[in-house]
Amino acid sequence: MKSLGNGKLTGGFDAECLATREVLTRVGDKWSVLVVVLLGEKPARFNDLRRALDGISQRVLTSTLRGLERDGLVTRTVYPTKPPQVEYALNALGRSLLLPVSALADWAQRHRAEVLGARAAFSDPSQAPAVE
Amino acid sequence: MKSLGNGKLTGGFDAECLATREVLTRVGDKWSVLVVVLLGEKPARFNDLRRALDGISQRVLTSTLRGLERDGLVTRTVYPTKPPQVEYALNALGRSLLLPVSALADWAQRHRAEVLGARAAFSDPSQAPAVE
Repeated sequence: MKSLGNGKLTGGFDAECLATREVLTRVGDKWSVLVVVLLGEKPARFNDLRRALDGISQRVLTSTLRGLERDGLVTRTVYPTKPPQVEYALNALGRSLLLPVSALADWAQRHRAEVLGARAAFSDPSQAPAVE
Repeated sequence: MKSLGNGKLTGGFDAECLATREVLTRVGDKWSVLVVVLLGEKPARFNDLRRALDGISQRVLTSTLRGLERDGLVTRTVYPTKPPQVEYALNALGRSLLLPVSALADWAQRHRAEVLGARAAFSDPSQAPAVE
C-alpha cells in the first residue's frame, strides 16, 4: 500500500502489491475456488472432480489443477496401477485457503438470487439517461 | 448439491449451482476483489480507483465497475457538475461481500511469498518423471 497523497483513498495497490494481485488471479478464479472447496472435503481423482463440477471441460479442469499444483496448493499423487491412478489433495497451504474460499463460495450461494435479480434489472447501458 | 452416488465425493456442483458459479465469476475476479476492497474504505471516483489500482487499464476498470454495478454491488452516482463527477460506492449487498473478499485478499497478501516460491520451484511439466 502507498499513500496516494491526494486524500481520496488512504491506500492503494501499487507495484509492491503486484504479487498479491498475481496470487488473487489464481485463488479468485471461479474453478479454482470450486476445486479447493471440493478437495477440502477429501482427496479426489480427476474424474471425481470432473463429475462433481458438472459442466467443466477436461481442458479447463486440467489447467485449473495444474495451476493449483504449480502454486503449491494442491498435491498430485500418481499411483502406479494399470491404468495409473492420479489423486489430487490439498496440502497445508491449500487447506489454509479453504476458509476464505469457502466464505466466498457461501456468499455467492447465499446472495445469488439478489445478484441475478440485479443483473436482470440492469438496463441496457445504451438506454441509460444521458448525463445532464 | 447432489449426491453423486459413487461414494467418491459427497457433494457436487451441478446445474442447480450454476448460478453460484456465475456469481463467483464476478466476485472472484481479481480486479473486482480489489475494487470492492477499495470502495470498502470509502466511495471513490473513477480516477481515484485508477490511481489506487496502479496498472489497471481504463478499459478494464470501466468493465469491472460496469460488472459490479450490473450485479447490484456498486452504485454509480453522477453529479451534474462541469465536467460531470461520477462517484462509485458499495451498496448494502456490496458491503456484505466485503468480509469474504477481504479475507481472500488478506490470504493472498499473507501467503504470496509461499505461492510465488512454489511457482518458481515448479518444474517444467515436460521434465516431470514419466508415470511408471
